[in-house]
Amino acid sequence: MQWFRKLFGAGQRRTFTTQEPAMSVLDNRQARLASRPVGMVTPENFTIETRPAESPGEGEVLVKVLYISLDPAMRGWLNEGKSYVPPVGIGEVMRSGGVGVVVESKDPAFRPGDHVVGITGVQQYARLPAKGLHKVDPSFAPLPTYLGVLGMPGMTAYFGLLEVGALKDGETVVVSGATGAVGAVVGQIAKIKGCKVIGIAGGAEKCAYAVGELGFDACIDYKADDVRKALRQHCPDGIDVYFDNVGGEILDAALANLARGARVPICGAISQYNNTTPVKGPSNYMSLLVNRARMEGFVVFDFAARYGEAARAMGAWIAEGKLKHREDIVDGGVDAFVPTLNKLFTGENFGKLVLKIQDA
Amino acid sequence: MQWFRKLFGAGQRRTFTTQEPAMSVLDNRQARLASRPVGMVTPENFTIETRPAESPGEGEVLVKVLYISLDPAMRGWLNEGKSYVPPVGIGEVMRSGGVGVVVESKDPAFRPGDHVVGITGVQQYARLPAKGLHKVDPSFAPLPTYLGVLGMPGMTAYFGLLEVGALKDGETVVVSGATGAVGAVVGQIAKIKGCKVIGIAGGAEKCAYAVGELGFDACIDYKADDVRKALRQHCPDGIDVYFDNVGGEILDAALANLARGARVPICGAISQYNNTTPVKGPSNYMSLLVNRARMEGFVVFDFAARYGEAARAMGAWIAEGKLKHREDIVDGGVDAFVPTLNKLFTGENFGKLVLKIQDA
Repeated sequence: MQWFRKLFGAGQRRTFTTQEPAMSVLDNRQARLASRPVGMVTPENFTIETRPAESPGEGEVLVKVLYISLDPAMRGWLNEGKSYVPPVGIGEVMRSGGVGVVVESKDPAFRPGDHVVGITGVQQYARLPAKGLHKVDPSFAPLPTYLGVLGMPGMTAYFGLLEVGALKDGETVVVSGATGAVGAVVGQIAKIKGCKVIGIAGGAEKCAYAVGELGFDACIDYKADDVRKALRQHCPDGIDVYFDNVGGEILDAALANLARGARVPICGAISQYNNTTPVKGPSNYMSLLVNRARMEGFVVFDFAARYGEAARAMGAWIAEGKLKHREDIVDGGVDAFVPTLNKLFTGENFGKLVLKIQDA
Repeated sequence: MQWFRKLFGAGQRRTFTTQEPAMSVLDNRQARLASRPVGMVTPENFTIETRPAESPGEGEVLVKVLYISLDPAMRGWLNEGKSYVPPVGIGEVMRSGGVGVVVESKDPAFRPGDHVVGITGVQQYARLPAKGLHKVDPSFAPLPTYLGVLGMPGMTAYFGLLEVGALKDGETVVVSGATGAVGAVVGQIAKIKGCKVIGIAGGAEKCAYAVGELGFDACIDYKADDVRKALRQHCPDGIDVYFDNVGGEILDAALANLARGARVPICGAISQYNNTTPVKGPSNYMSLLVNRARMEGFVVFDFAARYGEAARAMGAWIAEGKLKHREDIVDGGVDAFVPTLNKLFTGENFGKLVLKIQDA
């Protein structure tokens, strides 16, 4: 379990030597926001261009980005207005999580060759403050894993289910986006806790995976089934925790089937992110009153002080074979950013969606 | 404070003598549900008829009903389908809270002349199980008060704000239906707790009352003002607790102005109860995520074991002049049930709406 101390631990300070020559001649291909999308993101919303990589200043590190994370939340970052993080500004490099290797360091905590995760952005080389980076160990798990089950999606699932969802052993849990980066972890943790788990996913293949590979008790194909009716059949005593990744009609179907005292952690609303019409609010929200239930939003960053705890638990479950993960890696580089991102919204991805930026 | 022991205490057992002759010849005018309303309730949805009052059996009491409570929740009881209580059946006497005087008792806990509150229904004489009745003291407060601030609306305000809303001293509280039976108590308790309180009500007269009489810091007239904008002005640091009695666009306006960690107790949705189209879900519910906030439903009956605690606190505040109340009493008898009920939904009532059934 050495890896999680490296990933999430305090980080030991090392003596280091600055490499020479400074690597300021590197070409850095980047995706910069050109205009705010209306509805689905189009290639025209981004400028893909090559600039020289910038040298790190004191306390900074230059990271060669190898993989970036594609997340539904990215769509929200492209909209103007108040949210839990500021929007990406016009002309700025697109924000993203990423994993890479340090090529130059002006901070004693990192040296060239270290593998790190952080908010790299959609680019080949990221000049970053050292304090925002965490070391990872590619010998413990493949690098893309640190963007999925061992990264933010995994943390989101862990704290969203156990803390916000206040899961109790043996309850009935429903999770949408069941084979996605967050949903797959939510359902598996609930199974580890002895719960009955019903997934909701799009298509027979994903549903078969949720049941056959992830061990869910059942999975409802929202493209083929009447979700509300299927939930009533699978959850005759009602849903204790509905972990919502999608919003829209599926949220309404779940609200219509709550058990008394149910909790509904709101993790996302992927069905609504590309709306050009107003967001569809959950018509069945009065089920919260009837069932003395609560719907609660959360942002995983608020649990940062406890990432280590989650990483220890999840690392152990992975080692025991109880927590499986699947990455959907697109080898397309920075130029493939927009079409790869849109796979999330068409439901084409299967597992944690990652874009490979370049070879190590 | 003798009254609350009588109202909410264990109830002392007394020896009693059955009165003779049995009062089975009394005429009992009643409102029975004839058909389920679509949209607003109409007189045709009820049959008003006179039947003989029924004699109580063992453990039962015959109550002469003096006042009944008109509550927004009544509209929900008229709809088919699962809720926190079963719907009123076709042909049944309309359910309602009421206060009256015992005229015949077959239970040692009550004797003729006792004043009681309970679920009397919309009728002149109610044959009721003794265990569902609580004694009240007309010398402490006028009888209609026991249907308002000293009854279910008061309990709803107390537990909804302090428990579900988890109010902390000094927070910013917004309450809709601000001069209604529940809202007026919510806002005044929040003021007692040192909070900043903004009401939302319909019309200048109600708003003036909320500020001038109830002591709210401000009151937004939803018929004249842009509620969302007004909330932003009055709550520059956001809303910590939004106590929702109305749903619809006002709920959305409040969600758009939440502070981080806000709580939104869902008490009712009077704007939606007469919908013939689907309920309008709150489009801004994703504000819960951005602000790590929660929306939570509740039913006051769940706090029944603690009514005594609330009654003690509120009785003391009334005695100190800190908690004011206002009843809107319609002297119309059973025949006036439907038009009186509809005053709730047109916003014509001002204060706790009560229908006088008959003289004592």
